Amino acid sequence: MTENLNLLGWTCPVPLQNYPTIVMSHGAGGRMMADLIQHLFAPAFENDWLGQMGDSTAISLQSLLESIQGGTSVNKQQSAINMAITTDSFVVNPLFFPGGNIGELAVYGTVNDLAMRGARPLFLTAGFILEEGLPMEVLGNVVTAMAAACKKAGVKVAAGDTKVVEKGHGDGIYINTSGIGLIPAGVDIGPANARPGDAVLVSGTIGDHGIAVMSVREGLTFQSEIRSDTAPLNGMAEAMRAAGSLHCLRDATRGGLAAVLNELAAASKVGIEFDERKVPVRPEVNAACEMLGLDPFYVANEGKLVAIVPAESAEVVLAAMQTHEYGREASIIGRVVEAHPGLVTARTAIGGTRVVDVPAGELLPRIC
Amino acid sequence: MTENLNLLGWTCPVPLQNYPTIVMSHGAGGRMMADLIQHLFAPAFENDWLGQMGDSTAISLQSLLESIQGGTSVNKQQSAINMAITTDSFVVNPLFFPGGNIGELAVYGTVNDLAMRGARPLFLTAGFILEEGLPMEVLGNVVTAMAAACKKAGVKVAAGDTKVVEKGHGDGIYINTSGIGLIPAGVDIGPANARPGDAVLVSGTIGDHGIAVMSVREGLTFQSEIRSDTAPLNGMAEAMRAAGSLHCLRDATRGGLAAVLNELAAASKVGIEFDERKVPVRPEVNAACEMLGLDPFYVANEGKLVAIVPAESAEVVLAAMQTHEYGREASIIGRVVEAHPGLVTARTAIGGTRVVDVPAGELLPRIC
Repeated sequence: MTENLNLLGWTCPVPLQNYPTIVMSHGAGGRMMADLIQHLFAPAFENDWLGQMGDSTAISLQSLLESIQGGTSVNKQQSAINMAITTDSFVVNPLFFPGGNIGELAVYGTVNDLAMRGARPLFLTAGFILEEGLPMEVLGNVVTAMAAACKKAGVKVAAGDTKVVEKGHGDGIYINTSGIGLIPAGVDIGPANARPGDAVLVSGTIGDHGIAVMSVREGLTFQSEIRSDTAPLNGMAEAMRAAGSLHCLRDATRGGLAAVLNELAAASKVGIEFDERKVPVRPEVNAACEMLGLDPFYVANEGKLVAIVPAESAEVVLAAMQTHEYGREASIIGRVVEAHPGLVTARTAIGGTRVVDVPAGELLPRIC
Repeated sequence: MTENLNLLGWTCPVPLQNYPTIVMSHGAGGRMMADLIQHLFAPAFENDWLGQMGDSTAISLQSLLESIQGGTSVNKQQSAINMAITTDSFVVNPLFFPGGNIGELAVYGTVNDLAMRGARPLFLTAGFILEEGLPMEVLGNVVTAMAAACKKAGVKVAAGDTKVVEKGHGDGIYINTSGIGLIPAGVDIGPANARPGDAVLVSGTIGDHGIAVMSVREGLTFQSEIRSDTAPLNGMAEAMRAAGSLHCLRDATRGGLAAVLNELAAASKVGIEFDERKVPVRPEVNAACEMLGLDPFYVANEGKLVAIVPAESAEVVLAAMQTHEYGREASIIGRVVEAHPGLVTARTAIGGTRVVDVPAGELLPRIC
């Protein structure tokens, strides 16, 4: 096989040479995954759309139509509409956990990636990789959950695919969902839009999903059950957009709140400061994190978003979140600053300030 | 886990009860996969778009725009444009084989699914599930091959995702590609469009891909190397469309020529008759099939299409195929008949007639 590979002529760029093989951290949403994207995927597939590096990619409807009509003009209203497109594979282990299962994650995860660009999610595709020996009952219930989740989120599955791999070459079910939606004219929400002075909001308690999955995987029991927060955020995102101006939205999945804030700071070339005490964390999640040696700021969520909004919109957007079922515990946690661009700092409970860094690699593997 | 599952309330429909667990045949493109789709996926996700059951799904651009503009009219030309959307996961084993690798398959497979609806493929998404321990060099070369394939097919990767699973829970690389394209106004190519009297064409030699993959997997060597036919068919499909009228296009992947002809006969409620001697098969593929006990009509292709066209268009469409690099050995192999709707029959080399049935299940597992 080595001869075949050499014929294709890829040479490993220096930043990837420390890891001659793929390790779990390459998929964990931290710096090692970013390295893989930056030094392998992005240069290979280089194009303006992939270069947006958002939760989903915006594609001008006008450019689409022109590609097929050969320059026929579209009307002014349509020319400002963008399509959003995204993809996500789900490999969560176990398949069922308190508060949800892989089917719901697969729908809401992709719906949320579309909503974080201000898009109205419309259609999903669903690709299943099933492992030989999977009980039909498990598949049936996952698909039932996906269908219910689609109804709740208001999307349709427009195309599907099923592959089966031999026992020992999968893990029950892997699901890929890709999604398309439309971004209304005039909506411009993206990771590079944060400006100094903006307020930073989070939509509720963080760390619930990661700890819920870990609790099953590690056989931990807590006094009160910790449930995943998996939920479709498109409805709340629309309500927020109706209430005020939004610069950035991001759902805090792999790498948690810390990864998202760092990505936004880097993309917008601004600093972000937040107050640890203002970030809602359930006491039982805090306790579990202490026991497991985890920082809740790095634990994955599947139904929480971070919003960066102009200061004058902060209160109205917060109110819109708090009146929505998925944003009752929303909070303004910090602000965007001109100082230390690309850096996220937190005011700690004891009054000090610390740098909240990008997670390097593996925190909780296969959390989504 | 059983308790959790029962709460979701799925009960196994009768036709699936013979198989309490997933077996390899559920992903092989034959009757068992069709059962899974018909009795599990289709009822769960039921909607008009998924109901099209084509290689890709056509979505009216007008309905998309209306969903966001609240009824604003689109111009007449645009109202006839459809978007095509499709998804496919690739789990081929081995990752590299004579004539191609999983990266090329992942691009061309999805491009071809779009082209089979008459769509111009525009954007792909790429979702990777990597196995811990995968040599970086293998990933690098697969991605390089994908990028080259995208250039060749004229598509852009607009969004991506990477997950990593533990050693022993994957098989190096699984890739999902989803794709979108636009179907020009006036183009109506779909599996239900075949009419009695139509001609049935195939674009070249069949069985090459399946035998190329099997030869590596089984360690077989033949006098002359059998190479996969993996190729983008969108260019040839456009040339065919420019030449004459097309009713159905279908790339003959899993389940091979036999599966595709049966699907078209069923979807169009017509019979199909073809002449075995007119189907191009390489002598070495025929020899390999005899050795392996396979029927080449059931072996997967990754660069061959079946076209059903009005009789008066048959010769011009054939000529367009034969002047294209991927259609040099194209042939008119049979015709659509009113008799025996849903049934495919072949005139054999010795002059008899036989029914060419849907493959039940597993022929060649993990061929794409």
